[in-house]
Amino acid sequence: MVPPLDPRLPAAVAWDDEGPAVLLLDQRALPEATRILRIRSVEELCSAISGLAVRGAPALGVAGAYGIALAERTGQDPDAAARLLLATRPTAVNLRLGVEHALGAPDPLEAAHRFLAEDLARHRRLGANGAGLLLPSARVLTHCHAGALACGGYGTALGVVRAAAEAGATVHVWVRETRPLLQGSRITAWELQQLGIPATVLVDGAAASLFAAGQVDCCLVGADRIAANGDVANKVGTYDLAVLAHHHGVPFYVAAPSLTVDLGCPTGSAIPIEQRAPEEVTELAGRRLAPEGVPAYNPAFDVTPAELVTAIVTEAGVHRPPYSASLAGLAGAPSPTGPG
Amino acid sequence: MVPPLDPRLPAAVAWDDEGPAVLLLDQRALPEATRILRIRSVEELCSAISGLAVRGAPALGVAGAYGIALAERTGQDPDAAARLLLATRPTAVNLRLGVEHALGAPDPLEAAHRFLAEDLARHRRLGANGAGLLLPSARVLTHCHAGALACGGYGTALGVVRAAAEAGATVHVWVRETRPLLQGSRITAWELQQLGIPATVLVDGAAASLFAAGQVDCCLVGADRIAANGDVANKVGTYDLAVLAHHHGVPFYVAAPSLTVDLGCPTGSAIPIEQRAPEEVTELAGRRLAPEGVPAYNPAFDVTPAELVTAIVTEAGVHRPPYSASLAGLAGAPSPTGPG
Repeated sequence: MVPPLDPRLPAAVAWDDEGPAVLLLDQRALPEATRILRIRSVEELCSAISGLAVRGAPALGVAGAYGIALAERTGQDPDAAARLLLATRPTAVNLRLGVEHALGAPDPLEAAHRFLAEDLARHRRLGANGAGLLLPSARVLTHCHAGALACGGYGTALGVVRAAAEAGATVHVWVRETRPLLQGSRITAWELQQLGIPATVLVDGAAASLFAAGQVDCCLVGADRIAANGDVANKVGTYDLAVLAHHHGVPFYVAAPSLTVDLGCPTGSAIPIEQRAPEEVTELAGRRLAPEGVPAYNPAFDVTPAELVTAIVTEAGVHRPPYSASLAGLAGAPSPTGPG
Repeated sequence: MVPPLDPRLPAAVAWDDEGPAVLLLDQRALPEATRILRIRSVEELCSAISGLAVRGAPALGVAGAYGIALAERTGQDPDAAARLLLATRPTAVNLRLGVEHALGAPDPLEAAHRFLAEDLARHRRLGANGAGLLLPSARVLTHCHAGALACGGYGTALGVVRAAAEAGATVHVWVRETRPLLQGSRITAWELQQLGIPATVLVDGAAASLFAAGQVDCCLVGADRIAANGDVANKVGTYDLAVLAHHHGVPFYVAAPSLTVDLGCPTGSAIPIEQRAPEEVTELAGRRLAPEGVPAYNPAFDVTPAELVTAIVTEAGVHRPPYSASLAGLAGAPSPTGPG
């Protein structure tokens, strides 16, 4: 079993060789419970991915790689396993990268371990690259969750916050709760609390008044996919935040590993946006929030146009507009069959 | 008993002469149950008002007037009843207006009926004035609840929608759920469903992608208070919506009775913004949404600057910028900023 990076935080995805099993921290149970799921088949893993027990683009990549290892170790056809895994979440390119990384390797488990180790190293570099944007102090507004639990460890947007705090910056994080699944209040706030970084939660609609009051120095979010021109697909509500930042003259930063940059995808309009079940909006904790029979519009992601993005931080550096030039050199694996 | 304005929709507040009793539609139970509370004493009415069974500034005024009528009919001292009623929501100016209207009248019940009838007539005029903004078809995005259940009947923003639909317009309403108290998904969606007007709910952060997709023809919201210069205080998240509308070149309309225009308040910066309990953000239906110990920022309202408001609709007409001129003739009284 690969030990977690930080003793204060369990790993989002780990391997248990005794099982064999993929271990997932069940992010649906946070913040009320810290529950570890022991996943013994690819079908169970697909169900956990679809059900968002594990989430976040880089973590999905790690889960995908271990999924192929699990198939190989349990005697399941790896190609069939790959098809099942890739059908769970259409927007995140990382899932495909993780699956293909392990699928093409002579030893899928060794490949998955290497994929995870590279993920950790990558996010530490990313954090160090972005930390300078927050020094010596910053009131950071973030959306959704782009922390250690969204990747192999350390985090993307929250990795930048951690690196800045470790470098001595005074950081306070405004955490948008991020409806419908509340990854902000449930997971980001929990992770920051574990790390001892001050945070305050708010409903998504309350961010605007923080900008108006001059309480936000910068926005910092993750990404699910970045097009070659710098358009950013991320959790629904991110575009809303980018418009607010632009309107108030506040920098809007995106932090993501270069693997998230899909150079085969020319603009955001080519990124498929997953529509999710209306019940995520109309029900919560067994209680109806909207009348029976009223439909819900529930896209999982939105696309922020590149012109609203001040900079994109990757493990390779801080990329500034025009992104078609500054992102062009990244070694991010091109999407093999286009954005689908 | 005064019949409700529309057979499809119970009145927020009604009178039952047989009881005698004040009838309240319990808005806390929506959308799961349509429960009518039969209130037989002023003490019961005070408890219902404090507990938000009835809400919305104009509806509180009607409830206050009928409360005095109930005291008079049940042999209770009307002055003592008035003191009890006014103590429930000390900042609610409409509640005071309703109580005082009935208290000073020779026949309190007759006065309460007249207070309700005037409220209905006012909102019907408001709706008719605004309907032309939506003709012949419109995809309207609204926030919070500004409908019949927030007043004596018909509604403000939703009154405009109703009037347009009655005039033959094809209207579809996008309903933002409006965290933290979900008045959009719980009450607005229910009210529109009762009226047979097509509606779709969405989380607050998903509105931006609707604008980007060209799916919004206009925004239409209510107001808790409007300053003399046209700045609008309304449910938190309204300012966010106004910034989005502005960014995408979509008209942003505010609908409110002229009583809401506070000519004694020069600009929005003079409007006090109530901070509410953090538990509204961090808990729902007995479930924790954020970790214990993490603070929440929870303003009840925000202020939308007049320059983002395309027009303000009142029962007196459609007011356009500059509002310092177009609102100047209105005989307004300050409106409360209690919880909506």
